[in-house]
Amino acid sequence: MADIGEFALIARVNAGRTQAAGVLLGPGDDAAIVAAPDGRFMVTTDMLVQDRHFRLDWSGPHDIGRKAIAQNAADVVGMGATPSAFVVSLGCPADTRVDFVSDLADGMWAEIERSGGSIAGGDMVRSPLLVISVTAFGDPRGRSPILRSTARPGDVVAVAGRLGWSAAGLAVLSSGADPTRFADVVAAHRVPRPPYQAVLDLPTDAPITALTDVSDGLLADLGHIAESSGVAIDLDSATLRDPVLDPVATALDADPLDWILAGGEDHAFAATFTDTVDIPAGWVVIGRVVSGAGVTVDGASRSGPSGWESFASGG
Amino acid sequence: MADIGEFALIARVNAGRTQAAGVLLGPGDDAAIVAAPDGRFMVTTDMLVQDRHFRLDWSGPHDIGRKAIAQNAADVVGMGATPSAFVVSLGCPADTRVDFVSDLADGMWAEIERSGGSIAGGDMVRSPLLVISVTAFGDPRGRSPILRSTARPGDVVAVAGRLGWSAAGLAVLSSGADPTRFADVVAAHRVPRPPYQAVLDLPTDAPITALTDVSDGLLADLGHIAESSGVAIDLDSATLRDPVLDPVATALDADPLDWILAGGEDHAFAATFTDTVDIPAGWVVIGRVVSGAGVTVDGASRSGPSGWESFASGG
Repeated sequence: MADIGEFALIARVNAGRTQAAGVLLGPGDDAAIVAAPDGRFMVTTDMLVQDRHFRLDWSGPHDIGRKAIAQNAADVVGMGATPSAFVVSLGCPADTRVDFVSDLADGMWAEIERSGGSIAGGDMVRSPLLVISVTAFGDPRGRSPILRSTARPGDVVAVAGRLGWSAAGLAVLSSGADPTRFADVVAAHRVPRPPYQAVLDLPTDAPITALTDVSDGLLADLGHIAESSGVAIDLDSATLRDPVLDPVATALDADPLDWILAGGEDHAFAATFTDTVDIPAGWVVIGRVVSGAGVTVDGASRSGPSGWESFASGG
Repeated sequence: MADIGEFALIARVNAGRTQAAGVLLGPGDDAAIVAAPDGRFMVTTDMLVQDRHFRLDWSGPHDIGRKAIAQNAADVVGMGATPSAFVVSLGCPADTRVDFVSDLADGMWAEIERSGGSIAGGDMVRSPLLVISVTAFGDPRGRSPILRSTARPGDVVAVAGRLGWSAAGLAVLSSGADPTRFADVVAAHRVPRPPYQAVLDLPTDAPITALTDVSDGLLADLGHIAESSGVAIDLDSATLRDPVLDPVATALDADPLDWILAGGEDHAFAATFTDTVDIPAGWVVIGRVVSGAGVTVDGASRSGPSGWESFASGG
């Protein structure tokens, strides 16, 4: 990479890309210009650090690129907004192969085919290790954002998407077990598949009251909803069981419910709805909102890991 | 930092901050919401890596924070837009002191008092070394963006702000000379002072045709204007001399014109105007736009360093 320089490399990874209609000016000037048709935009940002958020011996550059976009797109969708654009800063060692960077960019654009938007700009710098910082933008499409702080007692809690798959895949990779034996969950760890459409296809009159992306773990993220809404949430563990996880857990002598409740990075969506009758397609009811504080499972507090926190002693 | 955890630390650095009026929802949910009153927003992003873009023995956290905001705000202003908001991702070692992070955040907010906007959200992760990724947003205020690609032969070239001061300060620090002897330029290296108002106060009918932030070095950034506009630029070196730099250059046996022409990170603004009579206050004419390609000084190509490029062999 040191051979060709930053500007040539940026030109290489941008070559042949088609910008989304909402990107009014793409890479090449001091700043990009993005449309915000309803006069507001959503913004979220995440930084991924080599050996902390991904390992190069477990994930290839294409998968890492997809994951970096997916986790940011999921945060935008977690507000009820449609991803409109991304900017990406990449720090990488001088001896990084140009092909590696191309594959990383290809992975990002592959996930963008699922999420919508395009990469409108970025930065590329030299760094002792790989660091990827993605910022994602969303268009609320004239709708009210769906916050975490608006769940109410009496609502039901529902999820769209997989829970615990990424944690199970990580456990397989960490255990040294043959990853091909449990290819589904290993693939889910390498590339999450946020069910964007389960949110974006919600009818405007859907009885949804609160929404979040499940990135830190179900208990942790529902804890954010409970705390910011001033409510308690109780989950029904029977609704959370996933037959895909059981053989993995048996092989690794683990409790699959730990993965489901505390595993992060699946980028499912968790929401509260006022009405069990009209739960939209793609959503599964897993609990209810009650008065009080905190998150319980089958009426009891759960001991053990509760989710991901970067600097916490367990994180 | 590992003692208090990511969420507590984020709460600490956000405590007591006042969000800009255009930040409709600040930190705390999946994404922030920023106003885009004219239906578009500008966006730019930069990553700063420890020992590459700053050294902890040369700059304190407050200065590093100011610089990180300044270089992004300058890119937004370099499009003619007003900074409206920022998001910041921070990677730092687990043993980073909480005070260090607080000072870094305070420095960011101090620069925001100059630039406008507020920090609407971010991310905080563990990393073996300090990495700061800032994304800045701008409001075009209903005006057309001022691009790099729209300079025309016959225009004059003008700059607002200091040139070469940051490079001179870096040279002082690198030489081991007593930094207090040349405090002005050392301070300029630690904290650039982009003259935001020289752009933001331009009247709507100012005869400006192209604009850029000078971040890579004057020759490099004017080279971007020349290339994207399909023109050549010739500079008059007599207009570039700066008496502040002469004693520094004498002491270090350097050519101050190298700093002025090739030094980056001053975050001055360079623009082209159609009319020398109406050059606005705060701008100094330094050259002219002619037919052809490339950037010359006093009619000749300049050998030697031409600017900053991350991965180039000299960078």
